[in-house]
Amino acid sequence: MKLNEVGEKVLIETAKKTFRKGKPVRIGIGDDAAAIDLPGEKCLVVTTDMLVASSHFPPRIKPEQIGRKSVVVNLSDLASMGAEPLGLIFSVAMPRDLEFEFAARIMKGMEKTVEEYRTYVVGGDLDEADEITIAGAAFGLAKKNRILLRSGARKGDILAVTGELGAAAAGLKILMEKIPHRGYEKLVKAQLEPNARVKEGMILAASGHVKAATDVSDGLAANLWHLSRESGVKIVIDREKIPVHSLVKKFSRQYGYDVDDFALYSGEDFELIFTTPPRFWESVKLALHRVGTRATVIGKVVDGKGVFIKIGESTEELEDRGYEHFK
Amino acid sequence: MKLNEVGEKVLIETAKKTFRKGKPVRIGIGDDAAAIDLPGEKCLVVTTDMLVASSHFPPRIKPEQIGRKSVVVNLSDLASMGAEPLGLIFSVAMPRDLEFEFAARIMKGMEKTVEEYRTYVVGGDLDEADEITIAGAAFGLAKKNRILLRSGARKGDILAVTGELGAAAAGLKILMEKIPHRGYEKLVKAQLEPNARVKEGMILAASGHVKAATDVSDGLAANLWHLSRESGVKIVIDREKIPVHSLVKKFSRQYGYDVDDFALYSGEDFELIFTTPPRFWESVKLALHRVGTRATVIGKVVDGKGVFIKIGESTEELEDRGYEHFK
Repeated sequence: MKLNEVGEKVLIETAKKTFRKGKPVRIGIGDDAAAIDLPGEKCLVVTTDMLVASSHFPPRIKPEQIGRKSVVVNLSDLASMGAEPLGLIFSVAMPRDLEFEFAARIMKGMEKTVEEYRTYVVGGDLDEADEITIAGAAFGLAKKNRILLRSGARKGDILAVTGELGAAAAGLKILMEKIPHRGYEKLVKAQLEPNARVKEGMILAASGHVKAATDVSDGLAANLWHLSRESGVKIVIDREKIPVHSLVKKFSRQYGYDVDDFALYSGEDFELIFTTPPRFWESVKLALHRVGTRATVIGKVVDGKGVFIKIGESTEELEDRGYEHFK
Repeated sequence: MKLNEVGEKVLIETAKKTFRKGKPVRIGIGDDAAAIDLPGEKCLVVTTDMLVASSHFPPRIKPEQIGRKSVVVNLSDLASMGAEPLGLIFSVAMPRDLEFEFAARIMKGMEKTVEEYRTYVVGGDLDEADEITIAGAAFGLAKKNRILLRSGARKGDILAVTGELGAAAAGLKILMEKIPHRGYEKLVKAQLEPNARVKEGMILAASGHVKAATDVSDGLAANLWHLSRESGVKIVIDREKIPVHSLVKKFSRQYGYDVDDFALYSGEDFELIFTTPPRFWESVKLALHRVGTRATVIGKVVDGKGVFIKIGESTEELEDRGYEHFK
């Protein structure tokens, strides 16, 4: 059997079975990041994310934007756990005939981005390859009893999301289909220069009232499925409440696309979805509001399993379009 | 200018200039691993190393051995700093048509190896690429005041190396040139199933008498040059004293190769070179002996700069054949 016959999900299951979890390993394979207990009240949170040019770089992406993206994808995984970043390291493979200037500009983009998030690139490894391949690893600290998990959702919790959804995917569509950017510059920017919700993750963790979170890097539907499976709960969201980016709606109308393809089934918005008991919602919302971030309740956690969406009067199961690799 | 025109060294210098070192960053780019201060007496030691199939996998390497190697190259960097491993994470890109069994066996090789070193694979990322690319990151803990550095060598220190040199490179030659393995199985094994000197690095750090170390992953000559440059000292080694693996001598005689090409100018032995004031040598040697590891004094640290080798009565500068990429 080839990898494209078994698919990514089977590979992840195989990894979960193969790699044993020792005592210091608080969180192993299966969440946005791993966590290892340190002496004292903190744990080390670590994650890795690889960008391969042919799969991950949209047309016309600038080297600085490649640098930014390679930082953000990793910081977003720390944000999902509520961890405070300590630093990042990068293994970078590049073709021999790449322009030096291009490589230097990737580094500048990384540095500018880590400065923005008040963290550091502390090391790396260089190699040769036919296409640019950037594997980053980020590490941070979280309190052991405050870490945000995919498995932390509980019956009765409300489910909320930061910011707005769909912009990054619509931006990718514009770039891939060479659609004029005019009026949609913000969508293109959301794709090329994403943000990680680092301070928001730390606020959620510090509140003590949020136990479950994940980012929407795989798309809202796929990440809700992760939450549902890992927490052993049923999630019901309301389509009307999903905070779709207003330009995504306009763009979809104008070009005849399905808004759901952007807001539900595509990733890279790097917003956080999280759950909290309803009585804490107002204080959590306020804490996020203080740093300028809007959060919206889009659903609830109930007994059962699966992810469902209310559309008008009907409720249907939400399609899980995760596990994109080796399909 | 293309990368192959500027070379790896310029890229590393560019990285050193681009990435600022903030207050918590004890050791940034330029050592075997980076170190970031944690609250208390420890620091977090982190490193990343990438294996790209076309550059790093010798002919006939088994998937378990790929798994082993991807763990060992990263643990060796922790060993160089004297850190205790906490865990590893891997970003792995593979072709879509790779056999699932092959991928599963890589994982098994990783797991077997981390068990041997009493640590864990705690997470990862999967992607598609034309060739197998494995970027590992390892993280560990070290005492802030006991960390082993490339910059720690001081005038008057003796210079020593663990184990024997040349086996991994001779093994690679056998595999590349399809030379019969018979009688040289140990050399082939040294290449395909290397070891990292993790406990030795921890012993050196714990002794309090060793301040400088690096592994010989780039080859003895290249790594001595790193030590010399980072410590701002001159290093003089004695060719007679280099502990060349006995089979490497035999193999070189039989096939007409230059022993120095294996023992001085080729890497992947993953032995540690370190320096210590002469009065501590016996106790350090004994501490390593207790875990079954031989160490040999091969030279000394003096005022000045550069790396020199005594061959009989004459002394000559040792060629620096590091910075292999983008040449």
